[in-house]
Amino acid sequence: MSRQSNRTTDSKKMNSELFTLTYGALVTQLCKDYENDEEVNKQLDKMGYNIGVRLIEDFLARSNIGRCQDFRETADVIAKIAFKMYLGTTPSVTNWSPAGDEFSLILENNPLVDFVELPDNHSTLIYSNLLCGVLRGALEMVQMAVDVRFAQDTLRGDNVTEIRMKFIKRIEENLPAGDE
Amino acid sequence: MSRQSNRTTDSKKMNSELFTLTYGALVTQLCKDYENDEEVNKQLDKMGYNIGVRLIEDFLARSNIGRCQDFRETADVIAKIAFKMYLGTTPSVTNWSPAGDEFSLILENNPLVDFVELPDNHSTLIYSNLLCGVLRGALEMVQMAVDVRFAQDTLRGDNVTEIRMKFIKRIEENLPAGDE
Repeated sequence: MSRQSNRTTDSKKMNSELFTLTYGALVTQLCKDYENDEEVNKQLDKMGYNIGVRLIEDFLARSNIGRCQDFRETADVIAKIAFKMYLGTTPSVTNWSPAGDEFSLILENNPLVDFVELPDNHSTLIYSNLLCGVLRGALEMVQMAVDVRFAQDTLRGDNVTEIRMKFIKRIEENLPAGDE
Repeated sequence: MSRQSNRTTDSKKMNSELFTLTYGALVTQLCKDYENDEEVNKQLDKMGYNIGVRLIEDFLARSNIGRCQDFRETADVIAKIAFKMYLGTTPSVTNWSPAGDEFSLILENNPLVDFVELPDNHSTLIYSNLLCGVLRGALEMVQMAVDVRFAQDTLRGDNVTEIRMKFIKRIEENLPAGDE
């Protein structure tokens, strides 16, 4: 499905429940399609990546945010603006590594899992893994290679949901010679 | 995935774009999984139905709405409250049949298709068919059998998106003898 060129940044604010249940239908479908949880996790990450590389354009247009000065600013923009905008929730930014290249997003409240309990036969399913892909894809489009993974998950019995993000490298822009 | 018993009606308001792209990923996956558009349309309707039968409980809790007096009131509640709540848009209610048992919801702006163009090889895909299932499922849970289908679709070149709804019958509640 390709993108229409005539869309605007008109925003439609909606409650999260229909999204939550639709996401559940997607995960359920993938569990039918793929052999094991690991494959489903991979597929969710891949789908999320494809979403992220498209969502970033909408995000930049809507938020009017320029290039971040450092990874700390990136972390704040993700937590306070992006999560708030697209998931209606604001995770806290914490557990910085001494080098400042790793942090965690702590979600007290993950809207994707509102109606969900993992069945026993899907104990290794990373249910919300789409989010990791979205973050990875979106950041790649602003020249940041970042490793994103779930470190804790309330669905697996943890008290909070924790997404761990590790800066890998700045991606060189391949611009034609003479451009800047 | 079963429903948690401890969820509240805390609402998370979010922009629609992540939902829109995630829905696109779901439709794309179904197009890979099923032989033809007709099967995908059926599957979307079925998934929507399963979502509707769960979403209605959230809707009733959140909207605090009681039983509708007639189909006209039902139409208004769907358009002005339910669509607004879960899709952030308010369709107009129009094209009533003389008997008052059929109407159309006209969506000037269908958030599900914001980033979408149908590829040529999917000309019979009813892309947003999940919505028909959601409406059908939710109404069934409040004892109304309703036929729901897309009559027009901007994705197929129509000027608006039109969902046609036809009341079929009131479903008898099977209550234990002596209950009301």
